[in-house]
Amino acid sequence: MTPAADDPIRVAVSTVIFSVRTREDRDVLMIPLVRRTRDPFVGSWALPGGWLASDEGLGLAAGRTLAETTGLAPSWLEQLYTFGDLDRSPSRVVSIVYWALLRSDLVEAQREAVDAPENVAWFDVDDLPQLAFDHRHIIDYAVWRLRNKAGYSRIAAGLLPDEFTLAELRAVYETVLGRRLDPSNFRRLLEGSEALVPTERFRTGSHRPARIFRYNSEVELADLGPLGSS
Amino acid sequence: MTPAADDPIRVAVSTVIFSVRTREDRDVLMIPLVRRTRDPFVGSWALPGGWLASDEGLGLAAGRTLAETTGLAPSWLEQLYTFGDLDRSPSRVVSIVYWALLRSDLVEAQREAVDAPENVAWFDVDDLPQLAFDHRHIIDYAVWRLRNKAGYSRIAAGLLPDEFTLAELRAVYETVLGRRLDPSNFRRLLEGSEALVPTERFRTGSHRPARIFRYNSEVELADLGPLGSS
Repeated sequence: MTPAADDPIRVAVSTVIFSVRTREDRDVLMIPLVRRTRDPFVGSWALPGGWLASDEGLGLAAGRTLAETTGLAPSWLEQLYTFGDLDRSPSRVVSIVYWALLRSDLVEAQREAVDAPENVAWFDVDDLPQLAFDHRHIIDYAVWRLRNKAGYSRIAAGLLPDEFTLAELRAVYETVLGRRLDPSNFRRLLEGSEALVPTERFRTGSHRPARIFRYNSEVELADLGPLGSS
Repeated sequence: MTPAADDPIRVAVSTVIFSVRTREDRDVLMIPLVRRTRDPFVGSWALPGGWLASDEGLGLAAGRTLAETTGLAPSWLEQLYTFGDLDRSPSRVVSIVYWALLRSDLVEAQREAVDAPENVAWFDVDDLPQLAFDHRHIIDYAVWRLRNKAGYSRIAAGLLPDEFTLAELRAVYETVLGRRLDPSNFRRLLEGSEALVPTERFRTGSHRPARIFRYNSEVELADLGPLGSS
């Protein structure tokens, strides 16, 4: 059913929020999805989101609808793309999609305030269920952008707690990129970086002690150019 | 005046279309702007654009409104960002903005079919007039994205005719980036590239003959990932 030229256009906001979670002893790049409780696509999984209100900005709407549906508050939020194909929904809906990162240490703490938590579940981005609308296409694009951006920025740090060892940082990059990285090359590349600040503390345990680092908070996770100051 | 939560939200589409044009013997990165003939901002310059129709896709709407206001058809069109701040317009308008490139040899050919061509003018991106709405901010971001992208893709080729010499290619990069590039470094970097196909023809004139190249059309100007196939 094709809409007519002057049919109403509704504006929605959705968010693809990534976190690294441990599943069966393995770190996995995951996103939360919300099971739809009404048509269209009742019973299918969909991205967290909702309608844009006239009196809220786009990023605020992304944060609000994410909190309302999943109880999560992102550590990084950035606009991804606006999807508006005619056939993506029975009526004409333009979806402004954000992508977000959630620090792994904050996932479990943020489950209060969700009405129906049984309708929210986390999924491996490489093993997704049946999805409503064009949300599979949207997620594919978000994963591609995250992997791409991880290659030239320190965006993956948005998935880590404040402090971490180089091995932990490498592990999160490996999970995002989906491939192993050479430990000594990785160390060489990162140790000279101004963005990484060594602390005087060490992680001890079954391995030899590993120095704990934190990120220099004066360096942005990614350069948004003129948007950064808006 | 802040809109109420359930006021209507209107969706507009605008395009920042770049071309390299010669001004007083100098190549300049320029964009066309349209003078507004009604309020708000009557008399100010604005980006070409218009309202999204319910029965057209976003990219098609960008192309249509660009053609209607300026008569131009882009050689490259890509979604830039969606702007939706509350105070960007007296009523609530969300603008999905595209950025585009126009080959320098096609600018003059495309001026038919514009109702009021005296309301369209080209401006140096570094010397813009007073702009309506948040269009100055939008253009700043588009210029930043183009310059950024020119650093890691062959996007600037979208500003050139089908065939060109290495000196012409370097000149367009210099104009986009706003700085001089070393001729021998540039030649070394580009000559080995698979994207560049040498022809057996040469440009002759006041300088020594220069080989004419064309781009390998099987290589995309920029990688759009999963969006490229949509």
